[in-house]
Amino acid sequence: MRENTLKSAWLGGESTMGLWLTSTSPLMARRLAHSGADYVCVDMQHGTSDYTQALAMLMAMERAPAVPIVRVPWNEPGIIGRVLDAGAMGVIVPMVNTVAEAEAAVRACRYPPHGSRSNGPIIAADALGPDYATGADQQIVCIPMIETSEAVSNVGAIARVPGIDAFYVGPGDLSRSLGLVPDLEQMAPTFVAAARQIIDAAEANGIAAGIHSTPAMSAARIDFGFRMVTVTSDLQAAEMFARSSIEAVRSGDSGGGSASGY
Amino acid sequence: MRENTLKSAWLGGESTMGLWLTSTSPLMARRLAHSGADYVCVDMQHGTSDYTQALAMLMAMERAPAVPIVRVPWNEPGIIGRVLDAGAMGVIVPMVNTVAEAEAAVRACRYPPHGSRSNGPIIAADALGPDYATGADQQIVCIPMIETSEAVSNVGAIARVPGIDAFYVGPGDLSRSLGLVPDLEQMAPTFVAAARQIIDAAEANGIAAGIHSTPAMSAARIDFGFRMVTVTSDLQAAEMFARSSIEAVRSGDSGGGSASGY
Amino acid sequence: MRENTLKSAWLGGESTMGLWLTSTSPLMARRLAHSGADYVCVDMQHGTSDYTQALAMLMAMERAPAVPIVRVPWNEPGIIGRVLDAGAMGVIVPMVNTVAEAEAAVRACRYPPHGSRSNGPIIAADALGPDYATGADQQIVCIPMIETSEAVSNVGAIARVPGIDAFYVGPGDLSRSLGLVPDLEQMAPTFVAAARQIIDAAEANGIAAGIHSTPAMSAARIDFGFRMVTVTSDLQAAEMFARSSIEAVRSGDSGGGSASGY
Amino acid sequence: MRENTLKSAWLGGESTMGLWLTSTSPLMARRLAHSGADYVCVDMQHGTSDYTQALAMLMAMERAPAVPIVRVPWNEPGIIGRVLDAGAMGVIVPMVNTVAEAEAAVRACRYPPHGSRSNGPIIAADALGPDYATGADQQIVCIPMIETSEAVSNVGAIARVPGIDAFYVGPGDLSRSLGLVPDLEQMAPTFVAAARQIIDAAEANGIAAGIHSTPAMSAARIDFGFRMVTVTSDLQAAEMFARSSIEAVRSGDSGGGSASGY
Amino acid sequence: MRENTLKSAWLGGESTMGLWLTSTSPLMARRLAHSGADYVCVDMQHGTSDYTQALAMLMAMERAPAVPIVRVPWNEPGIIGRVLDAGAMGVIVPMVNTVAEAEAAVRACRYPPHGSRSNGPIIAADALGPDYATGADQQIVCIPMIETSEAVSNVGAIARVPGIDAFYVGPGDLSRSLGLVPDLEQMAPTFVAAARQIIDAAEANGIAAGIHSTPAMSAARIDFGFRMVTVTSDLQAAEMFARSSIEAVRSGDSGGGSASGY
Amino acid sequence: MRENTLKSAWLGGESTMGLWLTSTSPLMARRLAHSGADYVCVDMQHGTSDYTQALAMLMAMERAPAVPIVRVPWNEPGIIGRVLDAGAMGVIVPMVNTVAEAEAAVRACRYPPHGSRSNGPIIAADALGPDYATGADQQIVCIPMIETSEAVSNVGAIARVPGIDAFYVGPGDLSRSLGLVPDLEQMAPTFVAAARQIIDAAEANGIAAGIHSTPAMSAARIDFGFRMVTVTSDLQAAEMFARSSIEAVRSGDSGGGSASGY
Repeated sequence: MRENTLKSAWLGGESTMGLWLTSTSPLMARRLAHSGADYVCVDMQHGTSDYTQALAMLMAMERAPAVPIVRVPWNEPGIIGRVLDAGAMGVIVPMVNTVAEAEAAVRACRYPPHGSRSNGPIIAADALGPDYATGADQQIVCIPMIETSEAVSNVGAIARVPGIDAFYVGPGDLSRSLGLVPDLEQMAPTFVAAARQIIDAAEANGIAAGIHSTPAMSAARIDFGFRMVTVTSDLQAAEMFARSSIEAVRSGDSGGGSASGY
Repeated sequence: MRENTLKSAWLGGESTMGLWLTSTSPLMARRLAHSGADYVCVDMQHGTSDYTQALAMLMAMERAPAVPIVRVPWNEPGIIGRVLDAGAMGVIVPMVNTVAEAEAAVRACRYPPHGSRSNGPIIAADALGPDYATGADQQIVCIPMIETSEAVSNVGAIARVPGIDAFYVGPGDLSRSLGLVPDLEQMAPTFVAAARQIIDAAEANGIAAGIHSTPAMSAARIDFGFRMVTVTSDLQAAEMFARSSIEAVRSGDSGGGSASGY
Repeated sequence: MRENTLKSAWLGGESTMGLWLTSTSPLMARRLAHSGADYVCVDMQHGTSDYTQALAMLMAMERAPAVPIVRVPWNEPGIIGRVLDAGAMGVIVPMVNTVAEAEAAVRACRYPPHGSRSNGPIIAADALGPDYATGADQQIVCIPMIETSEAVSNVGAIARVPGIDAFYVGPGDLSRSLGLVPDLEQMAPTFVAAARQIIDAAEANGIAAGIHSTPAMSAARIDFGFRMVTVTSDLQAAEMFARSSIEAVRSGDSGGGSASGY
Repeated sequence: MRENTLKSAWLGGESTMGLWLTSTSPLMARRLAHSGADYVCVDMQHGTSDYTQALAMLMAMERAPAVPIVRVPWNEPGIIGRVLDAGAMGVIVPMVNTVAEAEAAVRACRYPPHGSRSNGPIIAADALGPDYATGADQQIVCIPMIETSEAVSNVGAIARVPGIDAFYVGPGDLSRSLGLVPDLEQMAPTFVAAARQIIDAAEANGIAAGIHSTPAMSAARIDFGFRMVTVTSDLQAAEMFARSSIEAVRSGDSGGGSASGY
Repeated sequence: MRENTLKSAWLGGESTMGLWLTSTSPLMARRLAHSGADYVCVDMQHGTSDYTQALAMLMAMERAPAVPIVRVPWNEPGIIGRVLDAGAMGVIVPMVNTVAEAEAAVRACRYPPHGSRSNGPIIAADALGPDYATGADQQIVCIPMIETSEAVSNVGAIARVPGIDAFYVGPGDLSRSLGLVPDLEQMAPTFVAAARQIIDAAEANGIAAGIHSTPAMSAARIDFGFRMVTVTSDLQAAEMFARSSIEAVRSGDSGGGSASGY
Repeated sequence: MRENTLKSAWLGGESTMGLWLTSTSPLMARRLAHSGADYVCVDMQHGTSDYTQALAMLMAMERAPAVPIVRVPWNEPGIIGRVLDAGAMGVIVPMVNTVAEAEAAVRACRYPPHGSRSNGPIIAADALGPDYATGADQQIVCIPMIETSEAVSNVGAIARVPGIDAFYVGPGDLSRSLGLVPDLEQMAPTFVAAARQIIDAAEANGIAAGIHSTPAMSAARIDFGFRMVTVTSDLQAAEMFARSSIEAVRSGDSGGGSASGY
């Protein structure tokens, strides 16, 4: 079975960077999965992919170097099982606030005896290897989101739930929960303190802490200790590049990007 | 009916810049149509949109400032009529090599007595105005591609075909036709000479010459006399921004882009 | 093979009425095909169905009493063959202006020796009967549109082309071609004269003349001699009923429609 | 952010009327949203829209005067968040029988501190305004369905749950729960008594009571005190208009509807 | 309403055989539903159908002799109601381990007073009969999966839950739960013992036990007492036939299958 | 660029066998492309794939050993270019009856100076190699169908058109054209004589003759001299295997097929 290089990087203490798919294009997914990222995440919660689009995007990314993962819309075992069956090598699970919710997320990701995931990886076996049934529990990563003050207050206990590989912080939701305005580049002291607590709990238990970020903020987030940092999304990347290219040409400069074959 | 600002810019002697949609995401289309471009083009020839996706993208761009146009897969009246009915304000028509082919393209774009387009603009009237049936022939732009040596040799006569608003050069195809390697940034002398001939024929007849370009090449193309320059595409923009952002973070720099709300 | 009751009605001198599908809903198609009409037409020209949607709608209408037909986007043998293979029992072919164009439309609808339709009716045989391959040429109707002044001037000769079952008038296009404003209820003298000419040519050759109409105009069109009259469309029907129902309730009246099960 | 005129009408004591989308056509959605209704509801429970279709329909209705809402398939926070992110200005939540279920529905609709909706309104911000993140809790309406005898027995307490804007009665389900045959025009005394109880509880707490209705029944429902009355659906409207138009023409009458441009 | 011949066969003590749909093709669904099977099951759990595809497949199978059923992704009332509304005549519900979970599955399948299914069978009434609302509870079959050791330990009590028509064993999951390697042809003694226990509990309560099987194993599974045996799937059938046909031709033999009309 | 093993086999004098895709499932496409065939063909003429489905299937087959080809709906350069851009390594072109039609097919498949295919292989380059632009003309196969008596009478001249790699016989159409009943296993003397003429013309010009066949007939077709033989289709294979498996189990035999992992 294909090795999950995201997991091995985390276990080796390395930081990883990723890209986000808000739209639903298999072509875009494949391009971004060849763009130097360690992972690419199909967003089924705030992005616009439903299962059908996620399947098509996962199939399009099968040969790419980035590890394909999915943010599911909710902590629900049906959809977690389906995206794993579709070939996702990890799931980000929103709004995990308690140990019980974390245990439920793990159960949905792992086959017995470590969980209660249902067997039937037809596409996953085609995509990731014929030994998927026996290898999956070692390679699939389970990534609960820590994004409320309740979750932060439970983060130590959640980090000790067996089968969790990383945390993922949603700055917008954690900001709201802390009474702050949603901001992907949030740096308010209460937010920073919560982030520190999350990272400390993660590292103390051998797991990585991750966060949704922006190009400008990613280096700082890594310096702060996050080891799974989403740098940009398909929509943001295309819009920012397009806007700056057009502005550069309008102002008489060269846009700076040269590319053939598009 | 909505005014076609692309046409009025051309008639006013201005240069315009555009973006290209190779993938099929309505969200992406809308974002790019709000990114400072004068036009956004759905590519049904070398892109992956079929009619259904083009319709969805055109509907998503209805409120955006950029003029929505479509490159149809071939010079065929059925598909030209359908994308205009779907709300496109212009069509780029591939491989127009002769006066007869140019006349056919115009006929497909114009209602009688100027052409033979069939009446029935249900979506277009919803999108562009209830007076579409009477206003369309003034606002819709017809843009044949000049991309072979045969077309270049006929370009003067083609430019005099009534109803043409602009030419569009495909550097890859024109390069091939001239015995050169396809290159979006082609600058070989034979190519440059052909480009000059196309621009001269266009300007002599009050129409604009356009070209598919890259961010780095667009300012030069405008300086050379092209007045409809496609600067980048969704796939290219996203990939280049993503790659450079990740490289910047890996090298310790800030990526440079800051954005909330994604 | 299923009998085409549209054809037998026409041969029996009867008038028929139909409904039009501008949107792409299989559910809607099925409901309208059970609403008392003699035929239901999927519009691939000015409606929004592409082949995929037409196939789904035709499959949804298989058990319904109305005869399913399709208006193809253009007089092109590829798409005519495909919609017939999908189970359409007739095609309306736009913009047939000459005998040669009429012969091409017939060839695309008929198997050798009467035409050059390609063999392979997989869905059609499932839908219409295992003897489709031998029965199709008797049951499929070929319906050219007569919608330009050129077509009107050729209508006698076109009516004598073997294999044509009916004409279909597009009032919008014929109006435009005659220098009139497009109007589904067109009654200008030149239009009426052309309509008379079309009907006369049709009846003289044992075929039916049809026209796109409105609820208010249909009785008059039938009285005038049209025997294939499209009364309304999915979008028009839903919008007019919804609007009048809401207005009736707002004004304190009962809306007049009672229905369970929706 | 766009004002929710449905909410302001209810707070002002007005009655509102709506339309229902059982099929999945964006074109139909847009037409009905311009047909004089106060709201249009995409039905993901008993209609045929899944998330992908709901998104396309919501995008198609963005410029229309009717307020776009969605009936979600079940009281589940994942899908409620996703349709709100897609631009729905309200959700109808099926089978809310207890205070706890009502509180769960509210939590899914409101950002902290009023609920636990997750932040990430990418499309909603494009569609409804850049200040969506701060304005949404004021503009989004949460509408639990009261459709079982259990719900009726709890209706007073449910009406006092903060964050509920209206109730919506499903006459079919409430009929069944009361031992009656499902009937959209149900007038059995036990049903009427339950309806009265629901309206009284609603009005006592400053919220509106709504009901699924028919054209014939809507005026009576409003007279009875319902202030959110769904008058008809896309399928019902199209079928009834088509059927009556064809019958009218068959009987020699004019159908009564005149329309151009379809 | 259409009679559920699967239910009547089970009540009559007969064994039934079925086919499985892992892919999403309506054509394939229809062909397999005419291939001699008693039932055909759309798999929304480990197959690739989402609601939209399941609806299209169910509509395509409406006229076929095999009873159309669906395996839903999870024991969740929203999706159970939706596939029943789409015309499924039964649902297979994964991972039913307790009496409470079995009761929840039944409630989702039955209208009051036997359950809490919500009323609104628009497509189902079109497909299965206008008396659907009153007939459904008699014709729809509810089939919990017994596929964990926990479920086996509760199987007697689960079998006594009113409203269950059959059990369905997933050999892969039951194998995993028993500490065995997943195997559709599992014959390990602990598995056989569990299978016996399941069959005994089923038969003692007048319900049928079913199992997912293979062509080679099906006769043995029936001999053992299973009365609902899935023999093969679309993907497996096509791949095995294609592979063996090609191998036969390569080796000089005739492939053995003769068919026209494809 | 990926080598076209179909072309090298033909040039080496070998026979090749293929599979046919009538339905539209990417999963099925991938499975069949791993089933021992030399090629797999997506059928856009009599199958149900439109461009969108063909693209998805081609993407799903990228890693598989079988060479992916497409039968386009008609001899039209727009669609030929689009499926090649989507990664097809060959096209089967229906109804090529004359040298001029054959030359048109070749032109659509080859870049200048050998043809007039338009440049822009975005997906093809991702799928088949970054040197696609220079390698394509060597690797893409162009396969006209010889399926009318007119074509047979021209077959010698057609075979000499540069750029043709193989002929493909449609037995149904050729039967019809010869006055025979359509039959995939046609063996009437006039058909056999025509087939001989086609093979002789092909071999005399160093190209392969192909034919649509059945499992039972394929060995005989190869013995007769066809070197590109389509053995079965997805629908036929699945239906025949399913039917025979069920019949075998009903009759008490084992079905004969054992497979895990489905």
